[in-house]
Amino acid sequence: MASASSKSRPSSAQVSFQERSLIPVGMATILPHAAKQVRHLESLLLSQIGRWGYDEIILPTFEYLDVLAPGLEAELLETCYQFVDRTTGRTLLLRPDATAQVARTVAMGLVGQTLPQRLSYRTSVFRYEPEHAGRGREIFQIGAEFIGVEDVSGDHEVLTMLVECLQAIGLRSFTIALGHVGFIKGLMRRSGLSPQSQKRAEQAAARKDLPRLEEILAEARVAKAAARAIREATELAGREEVLARAKVLAVGEPLLEAPLERLSQLYQSLCSAGYEDLLLLDLGEFRGFDYYDGAVFDVFAPGVGTELGGGGRYDHLIGRFGRELPSTGFALDMDRLFHALNFSDDTDGSVRIDYLVIGPRRAARLVSEVASRLRRGHRRVTQESLKGGDDALIEHAIVAGQAQRAGTVVLVGMPGQDREEVMLIEPLQSRVESRRNGRAHRPTSKKISLAALVKAASSSCRPAKGRS
Amino acid sequence: MASASSKSRPSSAQVSFQERSLIPVGMATILPHAAKQVRHLESLLLSQIGRWGYDEIILPTFEYLDVLAPGLEAELLETCYQFVDRTTGRTLLLRPDATAQVARTVAMGLVGQTLPQRLSYRTSVFRYEPEHAGRGREIFQIGAEFIGVEDVSGDHEVLTMLVECLQAIGLRSFTIALGHVGFIKGLMRRSGLSPQSQKRAEQAAARKDLPRLEEILAEARVAKAAARAIREATELAGREEVLARAKVLAVGEPLLEAPLERLSQLYQSLCSAGYEDLLLLDLGEFRGFDYYDGAVFDVFAPGVGTELGGGGRYDHLIGRFGRELPSTGFALDMDRLFHALNFSDDTDGSVRIDYLVIGPRRAARLVSEVASRLRRGHRRVTQESLKGGDDALIEHAIVAGQAQRAGTVVLVGMPGQDREEVMLIEPLQSRVESRRNGRAHRPTSKKISLAALVKAASSSCRPAKGRS
Repeated sequence: MASASSKSRPSSAQVSFQERSLIPVGMATILPHAAKQVRHLESLLLSQIGRWGYDEIILPTFEYLDVLAPGLEAELLETCYQFVDRTTGRTLLLRPDATAQVARTVAMGLVGQTLPQRLSYRTSVFRYEPEHAGRGREIFQIGAEFIGVEDVSGDHEVLTMLVECLQAIGLRSFTIALGHVGFIKGLMRRSGLSPQSQKRAEQAAARKDLPRLEEILAEARVAKAAARAIREATELAGREEVLARAKVLAVGEPLLEAPLERLSQLYQSLCSAGYEDLLLLDLGEFRGFDYYDGAVFDVFAPGVGTELGGGGRYDHLIGRFGRELPSTGFALDMDRLFHALNFSDDTDGSVRIDYLVIGPRRAARLVSEVASRLRRGHRRVTQESLKGGDDALIEHAIVAGQAQRAGTVVLVGMPGQDREEVMLIEPLQSRVESRRNGRAHRPTSKKISLAALVKAASSSCRPAKGRS
Repeated sequence: MASASSKSRPSSAQVSFQERSLIPVGMATILPHAAKQVRHLESLLLSQIGRWGYDEIILPTFEYLDVLAPGLEAELLETCYQFVDRTTGRTLLLRPDATAQVARTVAMGLVGQTLPQRLSYRTSVFRYEPEHAGRGREIFQIGAEFIGVEDVSGDHEVLTMLVECLQAIGLRSFTIALGHVGFIKGLMRRSGLSPQSQKRAEQAAARKDLPRLEEILAEARVAKAAARAIREATELAGREEVLARAKVLAVGEPLLEAPLERLSQLYQSLCSAGYEDLLLLDLGEFRGFDYYDGAVFDVFAPGVGTELGGGGRYDHLIGRFGRELPSTGFALDMDRLFHALNFSDDTDGSVRIDYLVIGPRRAARLVSEVASRLRRGHRRVTQESLKGGDDALIEHAIVAGQAQRAGTVVLVGMPGQDREEVMLIEPLQSRVESRRNGRAHRPTSKKISLAALVKAASSSCRPAKGRS
C-alpha cells in the first residue's frame, strides 16, 4: 500500500529519515489516500464473498500460545510476536495466521454445530518477516473458509469465489497456480526419506530451491529414479499434459494416484466453468503451511514478485483442536493486491471535498446550517467561519478551498447578501494541477439561491474522491 | 457486543467453560451475527464523519514505547501490553490510545503541512482493564480528530459531528456531559495543592470519589473556602445556571474566568444549534486523559453504566511530539454503543441467505450457473450438489435450507426437469421461529422458469440479514 513505513517512504527525505527510528521495522501508517483505497478494496471483496453466503467473524488480536500452537508449525512460531500475559503469566502471541484461529474457533463450537459453515474475515496477521524482504510485518488479509465439505465441490466453490473476487476488484491479469500437496509428499514418502529429511526437502521444494533439494536427496541417499521423479515433480507445471506425465510417475501407487485423481477432477470442473486460461497446474505448489493436505493454490500477477494470496484444503487442521472437519479456504494479502492494482497516487489534484462553506464569524450559525443541508445530500462538506474584514474573506476562501482540494467554495453571510443567497467560487483546481499544466487557475464566482444549490447538491453525481 | 469472551458468553454453558481457559481475559471472538452489526455501525459512523470531510488513517497496531510515551500518561502506560522487539531490543507496546498515535503521526508531518487536518480512524486499543470491570481489553473504537483550529468553532464542529453520528446510528436517548478541565484544575491550583496532590485530587474528582477528594484536600491542609469551592465544582452539573454559579466561584481570577468564558461560548453556540436538550454542563467532567486541556465531554445513554465515548480539546499533545498544534476530537467505544443500541440477537429465525441452489451431483455445473446468475442480482446465495438418489434430494434440500436459514430453496437438474426450469421451495421459516409460534412450518413447492426467477431476484428488495 502507499503507506508510510520504513520500507515505503513518503517523498520528503526528512520525514523518512525521522521515521526510520520512530516506527518499528515493517509497521506501516496508511495515509488517507491509500487508506481509502484499502477500505474500498476490503468492502468490494467482503461483499463479493458475502454473496456466496460467507459471514464475517472478528477474531481476537492475540491468543494464548499454548492454545493456538497446535495449528501453527514450528517455523511460523519462530516468527511470532510473543509476550507474557501479566494476568496469568502465560505466553500470548499476536495472531500470525487467521486460518488457525478460525479452526480453533470452529473446533470450540463457538459458531454452532450446523454444517457446512461459511466464514470470512478481514484482519491483520503479525510476523517477523526478514527485513530485506521489504514486506510489512503487519499483514492485512481478507479471507474465507468453507468448513465441513469434503468433496471436490468445496475446492471448486472456494476457487470460483477467489476468481470472482479478483475480477470484482478489477485485477486484469492473474494466474492461479494449482497443485496438490499429496502428490509430491507421496513421492517423497515413497523415496524412503526420513520425516526430518522430508520436511527439509518440502521446504526446499516450496521455495523451488532445486540445488538445495538435490543436496538433501543426495545426503539421504535417495535412489536415482526416485530422486529424479521428485525433482521432475517439483518443476512439473503447465496444462492438462502435466496430469498425464504425473500419472506416469504415479503408476501403480494408490498413495500418488488418489491426489492426482482428485486434482484432475478439480481441474476439469474449473475448466468446464471457463477458467482454463487462468489456471496453471503446478505439482510443485506447496503454500508453505504445514496444515494444507489437499489441493492448494497461489495467485500470481504480472509485476508482483510474490503471490497475492492463496489457499487450499486443510482436512485435519480443525481436528488438531479437537473436532475433525474437512475444510478449505483462501486468503488475499491486501498490500500485494494494492501493488498489483497500481492505484493512482495522491498527486493528481482531484477534488477531495465537494464544498467548503465559509463565512464571517458573525454568520457562523448560517455557515453550519448551509453545510448541514449540503451534507444531507451525501456530499463531503467542510466549514469555516473567519474573523477579520470581509475584504480578506474571498481571498482566504480561495486559498483554503485549494488547500483542502474543495470542488466549490460556498460563501455565505457576506455584506449585502441575503440569507437565502450564496456566492459560489469554482472551479478550484488544486495548485498542483495548475502548476503541472503551466496554467494559472482562474476560478470565477456567481451568486445563486441557497435552495438551488441544495437541489443541485442532492441530485448531482460528481463524486469527491474522499466520499465514503 | 454479542461476542464470545470470558466475560460475555454464548448460551451453551459447556462452551463458556472451555473458553474461560482458552481465550485470554477480556479478549473477544465476535461471532457472525454481532460482527455484521459492528461492521454496519462502523460504516454508518465513518460515512457520517466522512461527510464532514474527515479522512480515515490506518495506524500501526504497535509502536516503540519510547516514541509514543510522551503522549501517554503514567497511569495508562502501566496498563499497556508491552513486549520486546526481537529486531532492535527496544520495547514495543500495543496501541493503548489512538489519539496519541494520531498526534505522533501529525507531528512527524506524515499527513502533510496543510491545516486544518481532519482525520478519522477505526481501530482497536489494548489495555489491561481490571477484570471485575467486565470490559474488554481489546477495545474497538471509531474516532475523529480536528487538528489545527484553536477557536471555539473547532469544538463546535466536533460536538455537532458527534451528535449527528449518534443520531445516524439510531441512538434514541443520550446526554453529552460537557465541561472544561481548565476550571477545576484552576481551582485546585489556586488552592495551593502540590502538583502530586493535585494529580491525586484530579483522579478522585474524575471518578467522582468525593470522600477520597475530601481526604486529599484535608491532608494537604487546603483552606476551607478553597476546599469547599473544589468540592462544589466537582458536583456542579446542570444547565445555564451552572455557568452563573461557577462565575461566582471564579470571580476576579482570570485563570478561572477564561475557561468559563470559553465553555460559555461553546455552550451558547451548541444551544443555538438546537442541542440544548442533549447537553449537561458538568464542571467536574474530566475524561481521565491527562492530555486534555480545554473543553471536554462524555456521552452517556440510559442503561449503560459507563460513557459510550467522549473527547475534548488537546492543544498541547501534538506539541509533545514536536509540533505545537491546537486540536480537538472524539472517540466512540463500539462495544458500549452496541449495548446501548440493544441490537437483536440471532435467535429471531430471520432469513440469512436469500437462496440455496441445490441439485444432484450430475447437475453440478447447472447448480453453479444458476447460483452465479442469482448472485449477479446482489443476492446472498449458497450452492450444493448432492450424491445419492433423487428421492432423498428434496428432503435434504429442505433440511439444509432451514439449517442455513435460506429464504428459498431452488432445486435444479431434477429428473424430467428442463434446464430452463427450476423448482422453488418456500417459505423456509427457521425451526426456531416455528417452535416459537407453536406452528409446524409448511413449505410449498412450485415450478417456474429460470428466467423468471433471475428477474425476480434482481428486482426484489427483500434483504437477507447477512447481506453486505
